[in-house]
Amino acid sequence: MGKALIIGAGGVASVVVHKCCQNSEVFEEICIASRTKSKCDALKEKLDGGKTKITTAQVDADNVEELVALINEVKPDLVINVALPYQDLTIMDACLATKVDYMDTANYEPLDTAKFEYKWQWDYRERFEKAGITALLGCGFDPGVTGVFSAYAMKHYFDEIHEIDILDCNGGDHGYPFATNFNPEINIREVSAKGSYWENGEWVETEPMEIKRVYNFDQVGEKDMYLLHHEELESLGINIKGIKRIRFFMTFGQSYLTHLKCLENVGMTSIEPIDFEGKKIVPLQFLKAVLPDPASLGPRTVGKTNIGCIFKGMKDGQEKTYYVYNVCDHQECYKEVGSQAISYTTGVPAMIGAAMVMTGKWKRPGVFNVEEFDPDPFMEALNEYGLPWIEDFNPTLVD
Amino acid sequence: MGKALIIGAGGVASVVVHKCCQNSEVFEEICIASRTKSKCDALKEKLDGGKTKITTAQVDADNVEELVALINEVKPDLVINVALPYQDLTIMDACLATKVDYMDTANYEPLDTAKFEYKWQWDYRERFEKAGITALLGCGFDPGVTGVFSAYAMKHYFDEIHEIDILDCNGGDHGYPFATNFNPEINIREVSAKGSYWENGEWVETEPMEIKRVYNFDQVGEKDMYLLHHEELESLGINIKGIKRIRFFMTFGQSYLTHLKCLENVGMTSIEPIDFEGKKIVPLQFLKAVLPDPASLGPRTVGKTNIGCIFKGMKDGQEKTYYVYNVCDHQECYKEVGSQAISYTTGVPAMIGAAMVMTGKWKRPGVFNVEEFDPDPFMEALNEYGLPWIEDFNPTLVD
Repeated sequence: MGKALIIGAGGVASVVVHKCCQNSEVFEEICIASRTKSKCDALKEKLDGGKTKITTAQVDADNVEELVALINEVKPDLVINVALPYQDLTIMDACLATKVDYMDTANYEPLDTAKFEYKWQWDYRERFEKAGITALLGCGFDPGVTGVFSAYAMKHYFDEIHEIDILDCNGGDHGYPFATNFNPEINIREVSAKGSYWENGEWVETEPMEIKRVYNFDQVGEKDMYLLHHEELESLGINIKGIKRIRFFMTFGQSYLTHLKCLENVGMTSIEPIDFEGKKIVPLQFLKAVLPDPASLGPRTVGKTNIGCIFKGMKDGQEKTYYVYNVCDHQECYKEVGSQAISYTTGVPAMIGAAMVMTGKWKRPGVFNVEEFDPDPFMEALNEYGLPWIEDFNPTLVD
Repeated sequence: MGKALIIGAGGVASVVVHKCCQNSEVFEEICIASRTKSKCDALKEKLDGGKTKITTAQVDADNVEELVALINEVKPDLVINVALPYQDLTIMDACLATKVDYMDTANYEPLDTAKFEYKWQWDYRERFEKAGITALLGCGFDPGVTGVFSAYAMKHYFDEIHEIDILDCNGGDHGYPFATNFNPEINIREVSAKGSYWENGEWVETEPMEIKRVYNFDQVGEKDMYLLHHEELESLGINIKGIKRIRFFMTFGQSYLTHLKCLENVGMTSIEPIDFEGKKIVPLQFLKAVLPDPASLGPRTVGKTNIGCIFKGMKDGQEKTYYVYNVCDHQECYKEVGSQAISYTTGVPAMIGAAMVMTGKWKRPGVFNVEEFDPDPFMEALNEYGLPWIEDFNPTLVD
């Protein structure tokens, strides 16, 4: 079928590469590019020999000129951006300059404000339309599959959706008293940021971790979950017509929160440098160095994730509820692709979204969120590529 | 009366100096010596102008020769050691060489094993006897006043003491979510070390913090307290004839313990250096740099300490109980001497013990613990110099 340029070589990129190789009819050729070429080469070495031809390249994703030169050299049909959220705009600029389709998994976040919103990327709409190319935004699990689930619910089960609760549960246990799945700075920001949800066309702001619920997740069990702001609330609030309320909940264990709070209390999460033995050291940077390397968690994490959406609305004049979710096992993911479920559940939808664009099923000039396309082929692909979904027409609702 | 050489210039030394100046009939002259002479000069500057003449000197308390030279120059009647516990033996050696009386507040602890016991210092008995000089060991509050309380109970109220419970309660609040009173390394060792108590002539070992009790302390209120090993158990087990059980309890708040545990869990209390930006850094050292400076706690600590002993035994064939304790207010201490109650309750007994030796009331060739001398003049002095005691003949006992 065609050729994709994958930018990034971290945990999610690794899953994308594995999954592209499992779908070699679409991905006849892939080029893996990142700042550190040796990481790309290591991925190539692991997967070479299958039907998908793999090449690698070095690129600084902050640099539009370098990106343009690479795209002109590789001549891909699509650029899959699984680099850092700070780099979305430079990669979009390079796609515009070369008229190549674009997709990513997380929305743009300026380095200085750490405030994520779609505005930056939605502003590219007219330029992508004029260039006749597609940008598919936020195609991981959440955002991503959560939007596909919403479009699927709307298409098949509802006349109107009034409420959506997105429930993201990680029931994994890595055996450490405390560790963070990825950069602890991001985890800390997550729990110390104000929460918000969308209600009647407006944002309602909450104190950090103010709204707590307990939910009994299928195949995981009862977990504490907290209302957070999350990026798909912004696009779903616009794209699901008639929606009255959308909330996002994520599970956190009490021990995890206690550790984070203590570290914050003593000043270990501060980003203000302190003087230490004649050197300026940022406490948070030092904390990162003391904590287990997130990459080391994969082989030792057991348990499952359960992520999905509960919908409440009307069908044929009747009130109706519908819950659709995926359960993913950390150890099975690790056996299959060498990454645990956190990377797996982001990387698989990224490959599927890329395939949707490359096969023309989701191809239209402009900038789009996943829920704006036909969910059916994506839902089929989830079952085929390792993220099967389960439906529940009588779910326990969240207060 | 005479002249004392005070070695050390930290929080406890500062209280000792203040209190010597309040007792100028005994302390006509003091010399303050430490590694950092400017600290001694700062103390002198604060207190100069009273009846007690103050001089200062620089000395490395690890170096016997330097200590001998200083003692020969100053010609004191007594050396008051309020330096580090690691330095007890070098200072005792220097006292032996110059035939000058010695006293300290904490028993010797080798730097490498961090195991404190009296053995090292009791081994000096014969040499001190032969030299005709006195060594008074462990004359702070606990050990120190707790031994005086024991001798006083034995002398006035009991024929036999069967049980002693030493209760050390710090009800102070410094307003920080977490801070340590002194070196956090010592606090962490305290709560992570195995506990032990003395029963029927033997040590019984417990897991760290295994034995917890709740006690309602006079003027402080109900607090959680935990059984720890403490040095006076060793000498009281020998010196209080007929004793069957001695235990030591110290209060710790749940939040304090949670913070310590979390810091331990993430590796921040480790003394194994890690590689950080090309430098070897010990996590515990970095933690110390992030935490509030213990010296900064004085002005902001409010609340009281309550330290004392509960005795159970026989008098005239009847079972009898007796509780004697001191209550000390952090803010009042700070107003009087510029240190909070933790330093105050150690420094005042050190001055009193020094006065006991200098006035000849507690002077006898050899090496002694406080409970081996007549407690009465010491008990009087406690009332006079800021640590008045309260008696309770019907106390609540500890299970």
